[in-house]
Amino acid sequence: MINEPIDPRDAERHRAKMAKRKAVQDAEVASKNIEKGLLIVHSGPGKGKSTAAFGLALRMLGYGRTVGIVQFIKGAWHTGEKDAFAAFGNRVKWHTMGEGFTWETQDLARDKAAAERAFDKARELMDDPAVSLVILDELNIALRYEYLDLNDVIDVLTSRRPDLHVVITGRNAKPALIEAADLVTEMQLVKHHFAAGVKAQVGIEF
Amino acid sequence: MINEPIDPRDAERHRAKMAKRKAVQDAEVASKNIEKGLLIVHSGPGKGKSTAAFGLALRMLGYGRTVGIVQFIKGAWHTGEKDAFAAFGNRVKWHTMGEGFTWETQDLARDKAAAERAFDKARELMDDPAVSLVILDELNIALRYEYLDLNDVIDVLTSRRPDLHVVITGRNAKPALIEAADLVTEMQLVKHHFAAGVKAQVGIEF
Repeated sequence: MINEPIDPRDAERHRAKMAKRKAVQDAEVASKNIEKGLLIVHSGPGKGKSTAAFGLALRMLGYGRTVGIVQFIKGAWHTGEKDAFAAFGNRVKWHTMGEGFTWETQDLARDKAAAERAFDKARELMDDPAVSLVILDELNIALRYEYLDLNDVIDVLTSRRPDLHVVITGRNAKPALIEAADLVTEMQLVKHHFAAGVKAQVGIEF
Repeated sequence: MINEPIDPRDAERHRAKMAKRKAVQDAEVASKNIEKGLLIVHSGPGKGKSTAAFGLALRMLGYGRTVGIVQFIKGAWHTGEKDAFAAFGNRVKWHTMGEGFTWETQDLARDKAAAERAFDKARELMDDPAVSLVILDELNIALRYEYLDLNDVIDVLTSRRPDLHVVITGRNAKPALIEAADLVTEMQLVKHHFAAGVKAQVGIEF
């Protein structure tokens, strides 16, 4: 791939535009000075909600920090991320507390009891001063099916210690949770390979 | 948090609904049988594009696989994920080939040359049979500013070996790239802490 030589006028236009952009960018950065633990929500129908949460965990691990992960719905099946996190020893506190998708258990009382146990574990991790980031994976699903009381959950989240980051994943985040959050991203599905008959594959879906 | 006792009729309604859901789900899964390397695009203005790509890398690493990462724009600044990936030794081939944001360099010829070098490195990783997943981080930015020729890039991507997964990140993905991709997710910004004056923090933004 050979680029054409650049016209000096194009180069200068580019330089001027980027110099202006930099001034805006620098002013933006300078205007932000608050540091705080964030309540982060990854929702929406697209792929990447849990995956981005695990990416954040990885970033945190790079600074020698400790992360806690509670899986509210997913059951005991094997995933690559869990094996990979083993490289960080006890700096990843991983707890799979679900019993599989709600359409697998087909048992409301059992699903509620599992969600309660998962949230107790979440509270324990949030109370641990060694933990910098807690991921509550698929908590939105437990809230959507009313396995847990939304107000109780939000009370616990908003009364956590001020420097603790929490990431909550799952479709259909409740409006009250979005209201309480600092950072909310919706993963939108533009195009999905499942629609083209491609199956779930190692390293991609699990 | 104490749950109310569950009305047996509610329990049965739940069971019946979930049994139906499971039948749909099972039929869905059974209908998919293609295995192939995916061309994945993470775009949109929201946070999580690169982070979810790194999460995919982590998942792949959990299966003992090797991943390649080329950063097209980001320069040599320190990030947690890079340090964390060091735990996997030479199973992560990390190449920061950018020279900083376009508004930092303010030099079109230099940006183009850096993008060319980055794409050469990307090709080298894609040609390495030991690599299962290649992340082309911020390639969309290089394409947006026309540092690289879009058609040439798509030709290289679509002629890769059939089992290689590639993830491309960055805002403003080109329509032709979306057309060529198997899986496209748009990260939509619903709410961002920067707007509330919170600064970029360790383990969250870098």
